[in-house]
Amino acid sequence: MRMPLPGKSRQTAMLAEIHEQPAAVARALMAAAEPSAQIAADVSSREIDLIVFAARGTSDHAALYAQYLMQYLVGIPVALATPSLFTVYRRPLRLQRTLVIGVSQSGEGPDIIEVLARGREAGALTLAVTNVADSGLARTADRVLLCEAGPELSVAATKTYTTSCAALAALTAALPGGEPLRPLLEALPGRIESALEIEDRVAQAVGRYVHAQECVVLGRGFEYGTAREAALKLEETCYVTALPFSTADFRHGPAALVERGLPVMLFAPPGPTMPDSIELLVWLREQGADCIVVAQDDQALDLATTPIRLPAAVSGEGYASQLLAPLGYIVPGQLFAHDLALEKGLDPDHPRALSKVTRTH
Amino acid sequence: MRMPLPGKSRQTAMLAEIHEQPAAVARALMAAAEPSAQIAADVSSREIDLIVFAARGTSDHAALYAQYLMQYLVGIPVALATPSLFTVYRRPLRLQRTLVIGVSQSGEGPDIIEVLARGREAGALTLAVTNVADSGLARTADRVLLCEAGPELSVAATKTYTTSCAALAALTAALPGGEPLRPLLEALPGRIESALEIEDRVAQAVGRYVHAQECVVLGRGFEYGTAREAALKLEETCYVTALPFSTADFRHGPAALVERGLPVMLFAPPGPTMPDSIELLVWLREQGADCIVVAQDDQALDLATTPIRLPAAVSGEGYASQLLAPLGYIVPGQLFAHDLALEKGLDPDHPRALSKVTRTH
Repeated sequence: MRMPLPGKSRQTAMLAEIHEQPAAVARALMAAAEPSAQIAADVSSREIDLIVFAARGTSDHAALYAQYLMQYLVGIPVALATPSLFTVYRRPLRLQRTLVIGVSQSGEGPDIIEVLARGREAGALTLAVTNVADSGLARTADRVLLCEAGPELSVAATKTYTTSCAALAALTAALPGGEPLRPLLEALPGRIESALEIEDRVAQAVGRYVHAQECVVLGRGFEYGTAREAALKLEETCYVTALPFSTADFRHGPAALVERGLPVMLFAPPGPTMPDSIELLVWLREQGADCIVVAQDDQALDLATTPIRLPAAVSGEGYASQLLAPLGYIVPGQLFAHDLALEKGLDPDHPRALSKVTRTH
Repeated sequence: MRMPLPGKSRQTAMLAEIHEQPAAVARALMAAAEPSAQIAADVSSREIDLIVFAARGTSDHAALYAQYLMQYLVGIPVALATPSLFTVYRRPLRLQRTLVIGVSQSGEGPDIIEVLARGREAGALTLAVTNVADSGLARTADRVLLCEAGPELSVAATKTYTTSCAALAALTAALPGGEPLRPLLEALPGRIESALEIEDRVAQAVGRYVHAQECVVLGRGFEYGTAREAALKLEETCYVTALPFSTADFRHGPAALVERGLPVMLFAPPGPTMPDSIELLVWLREQGADCIVVAQDDQALDLATTPIRLPAAVSGEGYASQLLAPLGYIVPGQLFAHDLALEKGLDPDHPRALSKVTRTH
């Protein structure tokens, strides 16, 4: 067991990489510009009418964000693949006029590589989103978007998540329908920088949760991926049983879990999901839940047990700007998992049972 | 608080409905035969090349099963919808040549109805899978498959899950590629009857877990929906924080949660996922996890802390028969949640905070 003392030095690789995100996202956006234009031309000329993502873990959460973003702006249906059909059951799918996107920071997940290889055989256009140019995934795909995150030393991925999201946002901006995003990409690194201003507040907030063994993490729509990713960070670094749900699915059963004192983390950015967030927060407080609320809105923050107020710059103004908010909203989730691990005397850089590259079939 | 005494009468609505499943599934299969043939004709004549499911909670797990089954046999890509894009963000999707299937036992989920209504406007063929013929969902859809489960009194759904799965299996059998399922449907109720033989064994097994507050529930491929559904039952009836994963996703991070004594429930049917199940079980036991294994295979059961052996009839012989195994494998999951609730002194028929019909937007 690794046992740094509580309150120990914050000089972890994970924290350093959380801080690198504005610069890394700027590089990812720059690297994505040209290949995104090429892929957009392919999508038009090949009359692509379906996008299928293959990804695992953190990369799957970036895919989930892109599923909302692309469907919202481009209007093409986006599916998340069931990789085992390709790798375990070995069944082909009809994938003509389909763009198959594999997301993997290492580019070495055998199942994700296999989905792309089978997609190519079936006539699909294939794209790798990866942090490693010389990887099996990049070699298998027709096109590549590099995350340009630099080496990621922490096992718990942070900058490869936001750079994957950024690369996919740049691709979406290049596709027909993505025009509203284009003028907004340049400011994105600065918005993540703004989210980092929350660091001291999060460090001060985690102490209350040092003995929590379980929690629920909620987000709706564009923030559902954020909830899933924040829950995974809590599982990896703090060994907290963190259950993520969309707020709608949460009402269909898991709400029975709520009891006095249960920590519930809610990501509640401005936008059309706000009435749902407020209604749910009122109910959660009535049940005595301990609500950690990441938001900018006064009404939502006033309902929190532990309010975490993000600067207005994180969501920006207007609906198109709000579509990019998840890249900032995940930052307090990352910091919370990191700081809570330290407070528990755990080493966030080296979760038990995990290695940096996971090879599943 | 409702506080029946531990070991109290097992005459609950939930248990009665678990037992009704063979008869209910027989009715669902009979009811589905004719409309399935009509829908199959529509799918061919309209050159459907994408299927999109919209569902919440238990119904979403039936959709997850159908996603594997239809992709495996029919080869058409199947996506799970993101309902909030239709209901909260109000964006259209290109859904020509698409079959949109809404699954809802009550047929009254406003978000699911909305996805079907928007699908129709966009030119999709729409299908309702519901237990209520005179419901908003049935009225909105072009076609209807009725579950014929009879009134479901328990808030925790059981027979509407297996009948939804059965109706979707009948539809798959009618589609091009579904031929191998056709001769197997008739025996399906008997296979679920066989799974019910496990009842005494489960009742005897739950005592060990009466103080467990959290657990992990695992299944791969066709059993991923089973894992999700079993976890939801544990959350609803026992208030256990139950984290479901595909075994592949589990290795990408959540494996860090495993510590000595953590209950891990694994659904491990015969078939191509067995090597993965065995490898994972060996690792889990090395970590000291408390493994509840639902299986037929000796090697898998020998690795269990708590083995739950299903009769051979549940999976049947051959790959096509195994595709229907999830309808039997969920039965011990349902019984486990029911019996553990009783053992904890809780009323499985009336989970706190829930009502039978959940209306999310």
